[in-house]
Amino acid sequence: MADAAALDSVRDQVGRALAEFLARQRDVLPGAATELLPGLDALSGLLAGGKRLRPAFCYWGWRGTGARDCPQVMTAAAALELLHASALVHDDLMDSSDTRRGQPSLHRRFAAHHAERGWRGSAESFGTGAAILLGDLLLSWTDEMFHASGLAPEALARGQRVLDLMRSEVMAGQYLDLLAQATGDGSVASAMRVVEYKTAKYTIERPLQLGAALAGPAAGGIARAYTGYGLPLGVAFQLRDDILGMFGDPAETGKPASDDLREGKRTVLLAITRARAAPAQAAVIDRTLGDHELNEAGVAEVRDIITSTGALAECELMIDRHLGQALGALEQAPMTAEAREALAELAVAATARHD
Amino acid sequence: MADAAALDSVRDQVGRALAEFLARQRDVLPGAATELLPGLDALSGLLAGGKRLRPAFCYWGWRGTGARDCPQVMTAAAALELLHASALVHDDLMDSSDTRRGQPSLHRRFAAHHAERGWRGSAESFGTGAAILLGDLLLSWTDEMFHASGLAPEALARGQRVLDLMRSEVMAGQYLDLLAQATGDGSVASAMRVVEYKTAKYTIERPLQLGAALAGPAAGGIARAYTGYGLPLGVAFQLRDDILGMFGDPAETGKPASDDLREGKRTVLLAITRARAAPAQAAVIDRTLGDHELNEAGVAEVRDIITSTGALAECELMIDRHLGQALGALEQAPMTAEAREALAELAVAATARHD
Repeated sequence: MADAAALDSVRDQVGRALAEFLARQRDVLPGAATELLPGLDALSGLLAGGKRLRPAFCYWGWRGTGARDCPQVMTAAAALELLHASALVHDDLMDSSDTRRGQPSLHRRFAAHHAERGWRGSAESFGTGAAILLGDLLLSWTDEMFHASGLAPEALARGQRVLDLMRSEVMAGQYLDLLAQATGDGSVASAMRVVEYKTAKYTIERPLQLGAALAGPAAGGIARAYTGYGLPLGVAFQLRDDILGMFGDPAETGKPASDDLREGKRTVLLAITRARAAPAQAAVIDRTLGDHELNEAGVAEVRDIITSTGALAECELMIDRHLGQALGALEQAPMTAEAREALAELAVAATARHD
Repeated sequence: MADAAALDSVRDQVGRALAEFLARQRDVLPGAATELLPGLDALSGLLAGGKRLRPAFCYWGWRGTGARDCPQVMTAAAALELLHASALVHDDLMDSSDTRRGQPSLHRRFAAHHAERGWRGSAESFGTGAAILLGDLLLSWTDEMFHASGLAPEALARGQRVLDLMRSEVMAGQYLDLLAQATGDGSVASAMRVVEYKTAKYTIERPLQLGAALAGPAAGGIARAYTGYGLPLGVAFQLRDDILGMFGDPAETGKPASDDLREGKRTVLLAITRARAAPAQAAVIDRTLGDHELNEAGVAEVRDIITSTGALAECELMIDRHLGQALGALEQAPMTAEAREALAELAVAATARHD
């Protein structure tokens, strides 16, 4: 049964595979290990958190084809957490974010390490350099863990092509996001396109298809079903994240509420709000978006506009509609009953209100 | 014959393989291609330069085992240029370097792109973000190109283990370098350790061993010979680079002379100078190292100290000694005569004076 216990079990096994991989890395570099330990400890901390969404979708993508449970696929799936951790480390740097998963972000942690020791030069530059390098290391380790998973070379070769596409897509999505912020393109269409690349394909569609590719040569039906489920679910998932980013409990999200607003993120939620806003309301949004010094009163004002324009309600409706589409795609999909049930549960869990 | 024409031919074939790979990437992301074009053009420009040292060592590492010439190994070897380009993009960002290969560095180019268009927010932050993402893309593409080379899955699996080690080592070396700058550890031993990781293993030893691993299951003799040749040659090569960095012709190096000094790089050349310097001379070095505003008179003063302390002559002697060691290791090595000849030529070319 793909009940909550099965989902927890995937998460635990992914966590163990990551911990084992990191422990092995400590022995790889004997000539430099001591100095590198602060970095490895910081990475262990970062990797201990996380909902393991991408590995879970990869695992159920494999199971959906009828392939059996095995530790090898769990290790290959867990490699996606290294890719994601790399993206988070570099994202936090690009966004100048102070926190991640309730802890100081990696670049801030290394800047503090430098400052505490009274080292030479700029603590901030040291933090930046260390975060760039550790993000690069995590990205390299994605391939290392994937290829050392113990799956057959032909399976890995099939999976590699999906992994390649997934990485190019997420990096393209991040660049489009950067570009939308720079050009000030606040349209709903632009925000939705970023969501397609940065979330829907990267978090759900491609991990599912990666699991299927690892299991066997492409069967068109299941890859299409994973697209039919993955893309709308990705949109619903991101919209829930947008709402949590403005209205969520920081203790739960691990980030200060409204960080998205302060960092100038052009979310779909804000794009819809902007499109529905009266001129005076639109001016408030334009003024506050990207204002790192924005105080709580300013945030409250934006929250009011999101609610009073009906943008919040529209987003909730969009979540329901996209979730319905995703669940609908599962119904006729040529996959095992167990995977269908697990994916339905994952869909609901990933998009549920947190109140 | 492994004459100059053969070395040129490797360089040309690597260049063509890279151009073909980049052309294919333009078609991968149909939904985002137009906006991504400035990035892809910048990468094409960056990848068009370069001496192709790492692919050349990988190729001759393969040929040294007696394996035949083939386009597949050339493509796998060319993937190392993507890895190196990624390291350069991120290095320039960490060092705040303005130029690379005679062109503006990637982060500067994107900052200028932003400024010219009068976009929102900080042009510098945009440049930083784009350079982080494009460096990440190049790092991901290393694996993509390597695995799409057409070599057999078992060959790629053997090669992957060397590639994994090579990447972890170079990133560790860069972190050690960052750390040495921060802690102000100016010892020759510390600088030599950075050279071992950042240059000797990364540029020569591991590419050779990667070529051998792609050709067949490990034969201990040849892997050891590649270490015996690669590590001393790497030291000689880096020392030549240190000297060029202080005394070279910017038109040839593609970087302003003395950029190393302004960026505070703790090179072996400067560590030896510092160890030989009188107190007043040592004070000059400590003051100028890392001074981004240093003028030509200040640079000339440091050049005089490097020469008058005898550090320059000592470095030239070290280059000769290490080059001799590398060439000596070739003599008894169990490899083809053709590869032996090519590696001897590469060693001499990589360490020659440029006057």
